[in-house]
Amino acid sequence: MLRTHTCGELRKSHVGQTVTISGWVQGVRDKGSLLWIDLRDRYGITQITIETENASKDITDIARSLGREFVISVTGKVAERYSKSDKIETGDVEINPEKIVVLNPAITPPFTIEDETDGGDDIRMKYRYLDLRRNTVRKNIELRHRMAIETRNYLDKLNFLEVETPVLIKSTPEGARDFVVPSRMNPGEFYALPQSPQTFKQLLMVGGFDRYYQIVKCFRDEDLRADRQPEFTQIDCEMAFVEQEDVLNTFEGLVRHLFKSVKGVDIPTLSRMTYADAMKNYGNDKPDIRFEMKFVELNEVVKGQNFKVFDDAGLVVGICAKGAAEYTRKQLDELTEFVKRPQVGATGMVYARYNADGTLKSSVDKFYNEEELKKWATAFNAQPGDLILILAGDEHKTRKALSELRLEMGNRLGLRDKNTFACHWVIDFPMFEYNEEDGRLYAMHHPFTSPKPEDIELLNSNPGTVRANAYDMVINGVEIGGGSIRISNKKLQSQIFDLLGFTKEDAQAQFGFLMNAFEFGAPPHGGLAFGFDRLCSLFGGSESIRDFIAFPKNNSGRDVMIDSPSPIAQAQLDELAIAIKK
Amino acid sequence: MLRTHTCGELRKSHVGQTVTISGWVQGVRDKGSLLWIDLRDRYGITQITIETENASKDITDIARSLGREFVISVTGKVAERYSKSDKIETGDVEINPEKIVVLNPAITPPFTIEDETDGGDDIRMKYRYLDLRRNTVRKNIELRHRMAIETRNYLDKLNFLEVETPVLIKSTPEGARDFVVPSRMNPGEFYALPQSPQTFKQLLMVGGFDRYYQIVKCFRDEDLRADRQPEFTQIDCEMAFVEQEDVLNTFEGLVRHLFKSVKGVDIPTLSRMTYADAMKNYGNDKPDIRFEMKFVELNEVVKGQNFKVFDDAGLVVGICAKGAAEYTRKQLDELTEFVKRPQVGATGMVYARYNADGTLKSSVDKFYNEEELKKWATAFNAQPGDLILILAGDEHKTRKALSELRLEMGNRLGLRDKNTFACHWVIDFPMFEYNEEDGRLYAMHHPFTSPKPEDIELLNSNPGTVRANAYDMVINGVEIGGGSIRISNKKLQSQIFDLLGFTKEDAQAQFGFLMNAFEFGAPPHGGLAFGFDRLCSLFGGSESIRDFIAFPKNNSGRDVMIDSPSPIAQAQLDELAIAIKK
Repeated sequence: MLRTHTCGELRKSHVGQTVTISGWVQGVRDKGSLLWIDLRDRYGITQITIETENASKDITDIARSLGREFVISVTGKVAERYSKSDKIETGDVEINPEKIVVLNPAITPPFTIEDETDGGDDIRMKYRYLDLRRNTVRKNIELRHRMAIETRNYLDKLNFLEVETPVLIKSTPEGARDFVVPSRMNPGEFYALPQSPQTFKQLLMVGGFDRYYQIVKCFRDEDLRADRQPEFTQIDCEMAFVEQEDVLNTFEGLVRHLFKSVKGVDIPTLSRMTYADAMKNYGNDKPDIRFEMKFVELNEVVKGQNFKVFDDAGLVVGICAKGAAEYTRKQLDELTEFVKRPQVGATGMVYARYNADGTLKSSVDKFYNEEELKKWATAFNAQPGDLILILAGDEHKTRKALSELRLEMGNRLGLRDKNTFACHWVIDFPMFEYNEEDGRLYAMHHPFTSPKPEDIELLNSNPGTVRANAYDMVINGVEIGGGSIRISNKKLQSQIFDLLGFTKEDAQAQFGFLMNAFEFGAPPHGGLAFGFDRLCSLFGGSESIRDFIAFPKNNSGRDVMIDSPSPIAQAQLDELAIAIKK
Repeated sequence: MLRTHTCGELRKSHVGQTVTISGWVQGVRDKGSLLWIDLRDRYGITQITIETENASKDITDIARSLGREFVISVTGKVAERYSKSDKIETGDVEINPEKIVVLNPAITPPFTIEDETDGGDDIRMKYRYLDLRRNTVRKNIELRHRMAIETRNYLDKLNFLEVETPVLIKSTPEGARDFVVPSRMNPGEFYALPQSPQTFKQLLMVGGFDRYYQIVKCFRDEDLRADRQPEFTQIDCEMAFVEQEDVLNTFEGLVRHLFKSVKGVDIPTLSRMTYADAMKNYGNDKPDIRFEMKFVELNEVVKGQNFKVFDDAGLVVGICAKGAAEYTRKQLDELTEFVKRPQVGATGMVYARYNADGTLKSSVDKFYNEEELKKWATAFNAQPGDLILILAGDEHKTRKALSELRLEMGNRLGLRDKNTFACHWVIDFPMFEYNEEDGRLYAMHHPFTSPKPEDIELLNSNPGTVRANAYDMVINGVEIGGGSIRISNKKLQSQIFDLLGFTKEDAQAQFGFLMNAFEFGAPPHGGLAFGFDRLCSLFGGSESIRDFIAFPKNNSGRDVMIDSPSPIAQAQLDELAIAIKK
């Protein structure tokens, strides 16, 4: 028996009992006559106290030989502490050891195992198993576990079945790049790892499974941006005999359940916003609505005053930052620099201060007198003390840039508290995106998404304007989940493949099994998928999904701990009938 | 709203309500004046009844146009049936439709969607989505879902954390063949898919996670035997600060919980059998102990009577089949044929009948008189009415063949009822197996398995006799799970790698990260993994794991439904910097 209790378990009620606990040495303090060991495990820290005058030499010697992160087992009597600590849950007690066993020594770790560590990112990735010992990291993974459990509890109660779909599937050129797996038994042929279980969950609906979910690994061979991982986890769901409303209500319920059960937070009913409104009011299909600061379009208000920048612009549009009129010149210059960054892309910024005394002052006073500026203020419904920020230019780019500026102002004004959660749906996404480069339409969601019934006739006349039965759930400006009502009709599916530029042969080769399945009685169905890593990081109040993955990869897709990927033996390549091209 | 109720939900209490249900047409019976539709979904079957004289022509016309597996929605009033059915749970009621909508027509399925289908294996694999509509298949997947939920419930209550380990890991030559994944971002390098999360779960223990589990996909690129899948699912578990006893008790508890919660079956405390005893008494390291029929060794009893077969044999060993003395000559010939099959491998079989009248008669009466045969009977503790079956030859081969014969006799005598469950542990496995071909030792379990402390000194003198802290759980003669206490000491781990023929460099290249981790304070730890597919099939009373996998692959590793693996585009190969060798 290596332990009778954990290091987080002992309380005053245990005083007098002889116990054995095991764990890692967090630290040793040696005051000569008194010597303390803090012993740590996943559950907490317990203090071991040795009065060296009364203790055996053995025990004192062992205690003095211990280093940080040694693994030891301690047997002794639980005693009440003289000076209690309210910082740890075991702070009322200590153990007076009768026996200390070193289970495994430890060399000095390359960084401190504490909440605030001295280790940089790279070293902590290499020694991830040591980083996992830190409370903050472990709590993230514990949160993830709790969220998975509560997700399953909720869906299980609603008769959803968790069904495992295959990992070795078939490569399809549509969408992102696949990871592929050479098949030894079928030389020259490859499996692909799933980017999502999309077609399988639809086949489960055709198979009468009615309600499916899976917490499932998915894979995308993309050039990794800062916070992307080649393997990631989705809560993947699908329902049959549903309309959009049913799906929205079911999964709004899931997220509210998670907030309540995991964080004790009550989330109100989710509001819904069309994609068109999201773009118009926030310049963004995933607006952060923790704060208002909606876009106000000013073409009607500002044009014709000989200010060329505004007169030539496709769109003049701005936001009103409440209470920011006292921003200094330096702050305003910073904002101008911000919007001129390449990734924001504006050419400049116009501002107008609505001073507390009721006067108005702008960066373009040459063109706009106070009377004109009053019209601006009216358009923004601005009050004395507010700051108006305006961008102008090409409509699409300007909206995008103003969206960035709005978020930046939200940050600066403290309107984006990570412990406040604003959840909503964005609906009525366009069916297609037009790609200028290759002059064709792409599915905005995916090729199985159903158009809105009232827009179906536009598929022939004006496909670019067709809206889809597609929806995203947005929390605090992050797209947390998305999905759609699917096409369940072979003819309509075939028409969409045509519009997406598939030849009949390609469509048949790639998705024939799905279209054939639709001929055998497909129910109306739809669903969605949540990004589970992202959802966990949002719940954990972190920007980084990596913190919520036990063994993440770096931005080059490498696991630096195990040093993977790595070369394989020539014999393996031969068996797989492949060669490496130099 | 496509339905207000499911097809399994309506009862007498709903009579008079107007409801909408949706599902698949199981069948239509048309008696002219009366017409019935059986409407099916995952939850059950509801009868729609149309009195054609009173119904609208529309409804009657639609009803008469329906074929099997059409997807329809029916709105109407729930009525009490004149003639009730107790075969289905909705048998008290029927729906008199006011509206029938065809949601999707269906072409005729290639086999009948019924519990007993007319479809062969191949066609059902190709149209798996139709096979999944069958109750029997769906119930298997539902059972699997229930078992996963109950596994998580049990482990969650014991503070186990489910942690997702990576799928894109590193290839290691030890063990079975890896599936590999070329890395586009690291040309010439490969990820491997995990054969198990073994090293990661050990690193989680080093990382202080204490109790880990995961229901996880694993991958092995093996030539597939009848009931193997290239991807399969494990319940993978690991615990820190434990000894073998702790692990056995914890996971014995899991299996007993599953039997109780999923099947309502109480399983007694699991007995334990050493590997040595299992081989001695059953010739098998996973004996089916639903029935006794232990091996009895006869060298002392039968030798020296001039029967050359016995006199020359390394081992003469037999079993006593209770009550089988009346087996006919034909039956005994069948048994002889059985043991002579190449996969069983005996050269012949000797039998002795202990007749009901107390006389004894054997197939070798020439050599053994009744007095000698009495000695046999005594050795077997046989009673009148029993049949003694004896094999002789090389010790190892004979035990193996007799094990097959014992199982065959168990089948023939009805001693292997699939609704009876005999669970036990086999412990004290040998640490190594000696491979004659390449003259080296292989890890019987895996190279991280700890030797029994009392056997450690034999590692130098006689490694072949070292026993491991390794254990298997066996249910009804099937190895359902297995594991070990791990080595947590770098020096011992290094010694084991030496014995397994690893050079220092190879060991460091392949497992350096694990051995290094052990230097930073590794806790004593151990665990096990259950084969989840197999466990589900055992609970479902089936021999085939394929029946418990939603989308299985065939014996060539192909998914015939989606036609995978398949060729990929040259552009994909180019991006991955690989070429196919002709």
